[in-house]
Amino acid sequence: MQDLDAHAITDAVIAQMAATPDPRMREIMDAAVRHLHAFAREVNLTPDEWLKGIAFLTAVGQACSPIRQEFILLSDVLGLSRLVNVMHDATGREAAGTETSLLGPFFREQAPRLALGETIAAHSDGPEIVIFGQVTDAAGAPIPNAVIDVWQTDAEGLYDLQSHDPSVMDMRGQFACDGEGRFHLRTLKPLGYSIPMDGPVGTMVRQQNRHGFRPAHIHILVTAPGYRDLVTALYFADDAHVDSDTVFGVSASLVVQEKADLPGAPIPDIPSIRYDFAMSRETDGSGGRVGSDPSRLVPAG
Amino acid sequence: MQDLDAHAITDAVIAQMAATPDPRMREIMDAAVRHLHAFAREVNLTPDEWLKGIAFLTAVGQACSPIRQEFILLSDVLGLSRLVNVMHDATGREAAGTETSLLGPFFREQAPRLALGETIAAHSDGPEIVIFGQVTDAAGAPIPNAVIDVWQTDAEGLYDLQSHDPSVMDMRGQFACDGEGRFHLRTLKPLGYSIPMDGPVGTMVRQQNRHGFRPAHIHILVTAPGYRDLVTALYFADDAHVDSDTVFGVSASLVVQEKADLPGAPIPDIPSIRYDFAMSRETDGSGGRVGSDPSRLVPAG
Repeated sequence: MQDLDAHAITDAVIAQMAATPDPRMREIMDAAVRHLHAFAREVNLTPDEWLKGIAFLTAVGQACSPIRQEFILLSDVLGLSRLVNVMHDATGREAAGTETSLLGPFFREQAPRLALGETIAAHSDGPEIVIFGQVTDAAGAPIPNAVIDVWQTDAEGLYDLQSHDPSVMDMRGQFACDGEGRFHLRTLKPLGYSIPMDGPVGTMVRQQNRHGFRPAHIHILVTAPGYRDLVTALYFADDAHVDSDTVFGVSASLVVQEKADLPGAPIPDIPSIRYDFAMSRETDGSGGRVGSDPSRLVPAG
Repeated sequence: MQDLDAHAITDAVIAQMAATPDPRMREIMDAAVRHLHAFAREVNLTPDEWLKGIAFLTAVGQACSPIRQEFILLSDVLGLSRLVNVMHDATGREAAGTETSLLGPFFREQAPRLALGETIAAHSDGPEIVIFGQVTDAAGAPIPNAVIDVWQTDAEGLYDLQSHDPSVMDMRGQFACDGEGRFHLRTLKPLGYSIPMDGPVGTMVRQQNRHGFRPAHIHILVTAPGYRDLVTALYFADDAHVDSDTVFGVSASLVVQEKADLPGAPIPDIPSIRYDFAMSRETDGSGGRVGSDPSRLVPAG
């Protein structure tokens, strides 16, 4: 009979998990228990506080639905999504490759396939901008026929999943680059927006006196055979929250600003952004994307 | 514009939470983020693994209902409930006070009030045992009229909430001690049982090759004005799992065995257990109990 004090309990749990057949599961759970217990010891967590934590996590789980993933949102506002992304980059992004950003919860498969120069604004109006550039490898060689997925909010700060019947796609599209990896497309200037504040994560963010806003941005997914999926986003320098993103998605190399009269702009009468994407080669099979269709992360029924 | 690598992201999150008005919330969330990030860095958590974790936590939250608290179960099997209990004991239990144990999810308010010597088995049969003893303070002075709540599984290993219409109470009762703090009551010998294995926590426990059993035990809550609620349990030495409780509730001082012909046994023809409970004085208002009615921890509706 072992008496388990505040340190021995940690060893006892690890011993009871020691027969886990999957070595990676064992490694992850060992570390999870050690860090969870170290956290509780550091703050001397009381029973009442522990019950509040249980109630909070329960509410986060119960706020999840086929079109909402509150646990991803929690991970986002606690910086864990950014951290996982950064570590994933470090294992496979080539030094000259474009930096990645969060996929977020609004990506959808099978966005409309559009021709170069078309607009992704099917049902929305607002100030137009053009994005153009070239997809290359990390050494600068063009990647012919790379595919670019673009999705963003409309000029009022809403994704199609938030503003329309979910069957209607808007403000998203897929473009095949030309034989030199070149692309150009038209869209609307997006607005920044608040994360959903009507759930338990929103309540927490308010209790922390955080503003809850993301700066205006355009999501980008670039794919090409033999290359690691490039999940990134372009952030607008003129957004008041570009330095205080609630979900920590911004990197300096991803900040842009549309300009009139940009050299090489393919549609000269619309303000333009030039951005070239440099892809890293796929080196292993490890590479999922951070974030995903929320409906895949909620148990059926 | 700050570029956030795998360490700078942690500081950035803490800086963004720095305006939290409640100093204890700020302290807890700072520590939670530091330990969460340290865990992810230690195991170099990949996006795919992170998504599996999100899906698991979502399933745990969605398994909670007014009669089931899967997050408490997760905390129990990861040893966190035990740890919080032990730390709470360290802040207020007097050295000679009875050790505590987990309240568990099956406590119910307003169990039937019974007279000393009555049985808590209202609708169940099985081998009978008697429990008797005295409630004292930590110095051994009797506490007159202390109240003892007792609840346990029936002889088939089920709580009333699991085997009956939830409106039916069985195998639980409340006893007022006499003027010398003495009590005796009849019950059935409980069976050990498996934690619920049909949810995500059960799946995890199976993946860890753990047996999932708790040793047979009787839950006890002793209350008296001016004393800290004593939440404990008595564990049976002859149970095969007394040294490997899946939720780490057992302490050596709480292990018992019924005996025939025990000196002082109030009902000599039934095997008896003598256990004296020593209460600690209430020293502050901090002391909730670990575990609670699960319906209080699930959002309404």
